[in-house]
Amino acid sequence: MSARPGQPSFDALAIVGVGLIGGSIGAAVKQRGIARSVIGVGRNRDRLDAAIEAGVIDRAATDFDAIDAADLVVVCTPVDRIADDVRRAAALGPPTLITDAGSVKGCIVDELRGSLPAGVSFVGAHPMAGSEKTGWENGRADLFVDRLCVLTPDEQTPADAVDSVERFWQALGMRTERMSPADHDRAVAATSHVPHVAAAAVVSLIDDSNARLTSSGFRDVTRIAAGDPALWLAILRGNREAVTIEIDRLIQQLTVYRHALEADKVDIVVQMLGEARQRRDSLEL
Amino acid sequence: MSARPGQPSFDALAIVGVGLIGGSIGAAVKQRGIARSVIGVGRNRDRLDAAIEAGVIDRAATDFDAIDAADLVVVCTPVDRIADDVRRAAALGPPTLITDAGSVKGCIVDELRGSLPAGVSFVGAHPMAGSEKTGWENGRADLFVDRLCVLTPDEQTPADAVDSVERFWQALGMRTERMSPADHDRAVAATSHVPHVAAAAVVSLIDDSNARLTSSGFRDVTRIAAGDPALWLAILRGNREAVTIEIDRLIQQLTVYRHALEADKVDIVVQMLGEARQRRDSLEL
Repeated sequence: MSARPGQPSFDALAIVGVGLIGGSIGAAVKQRGIARSVIGVGRNRDRLDAAIEAGVIDRAATDFDAIDAADLVVVCTPVDRIADDVRRAAALGPPTLITDAGSVKGCIVDELRGSLPAGVSFVGAHPMAGSEKTGWENGRADLFVDRLCVLTPDEQTPADAVDSVERFWQALGMRTERMSPADHDRAVAATSHVPHVAAAAVVSLIDDSNARLTSSGFRDVTRIAAGDPALWLAILRGNREAVTIEIDRLIQQLTVYRHALEADKVDIVVQMLGEARQRRDSLEL
Repeated sequence: MSARPGQPSFDALAIVGVGLIGGSIGAAVKQRGIARSVIGVGRNRDRLDAAIEAGVIDRAATDFDAIDAADLVVVCTPVDRIADDVRRAAALGPPTLITDAGSVKGCIVDELRGSLPAGVSFVGAHPMAGSEKTGWENGRADLFVDRLCVLTPDEQTPADAVDSVERFWQALGMRTERMSPADHDRAVAATSHVPHVAAAAVVSLIDDSNARLTSSGFRDVTRIAAGDPALWLAILRGNREAVTIEIDRLIQQLTVYRHALEADKVDIVVQMLGEARQRRDSLEL
């Protein structure tokens, strides 16, 4: 393994789940020469072959045995399948380094704690980049550039494994930050999971009588509501506790707006809108 | 007045309030040759002069007297000033045709009903195009192309006035539709006003601990929360009744999500997310 730029850091890199994220990782790894070869593991042989054709991966398999030789496995399956897939990769035996790309970390880290064979390390990761679209066809080699990847190692994770995984995500162009799984999950409940629920709830205000009167603001607010329901269900379930807390906070805010408007408490409404604008403007987005 | 393409439809067109919308109208009118001259009325002489310099308007005034000769006045001031400005334009006497660009219609139409001099017609309009930005510098001559403009004449509005105003907005490239002020306001409460409140409420979930973990989904959901608080306060107040009803519906939806997640009612969550996705995909945005 080498950290020199321009030199492959890994001989064989395996991507389990060649969708939007997995496909983008494959494309980025190949473009940046991060590994000598990229093997994709998936369930649909035809789609895997097409991904090879498109240059997203080098080889493909529908079976985990094929990744036996990989020195890094990146599990990019939906949140509710990640722990199982990590265990299946781990069962192939050491030395194996495994990371993932799941949007929830606590449930995965908890489920895997103490259950992996000696010599196999799992370093949870959440590359914060994506799209409401799915499939490797919608991926991009530059999807991760300048975005944040949160790593959630625990006390048991060997330091050199964390370092290697951190260098991998950095090699894709990402900034990295280490957090506890619980801190990560609380944060993304507010920044990602509940905004998704809010977008879906806003869409539900639309019916045949008003659909014509949507404009660019509506389009932006609700874009992510076009995301895959099954993927999002798994994310929301996986982070249920933090998500319900943040939904309650959102309902609380809306209730304040509602009553302030009804009572014509102009100062309260303009102050809340002003604070929201200020905070929105202060974010580096 | 002529409807022939390429021929000016108006001799002198006055724009009251040369901001993002007024400035975009000026630029579009001049680019498309819709009027022989465009006069902008505003409060800040320096900014008006700069707008002349930029070619957004031909002449400028800080006084309504200057628009005496205009055969169409377009009032583009904030919602809570529109009725006053329409009355000031109307006081210059007939024959005068006045329209506006306010996002709320009921309160304006109600306030003006029966109060305009004979021979002066007001046709309420809501060109559904905009931006979270303000100022004519952020305007664009093509802002209105292929967007919907809702017209809200009432029984008293002369048919030829409605036709003229409709042709004006169509000349900017817009589709037009006539609705009652109440139907319009109910619709935009759901499609625009409450989505704005929702975006602002989502921003309030952000604090120093999680601000780093926002990504492109959050950026989109909250973009409109960067809008001017004073403008939005006026809109929300002007449409208070419909807005509070739609906030209640939004809270109701969020409450269903919250309880379904807590009780792990997977079917309900995935059905709601699926319906939201389907409706979002069905919109022509």
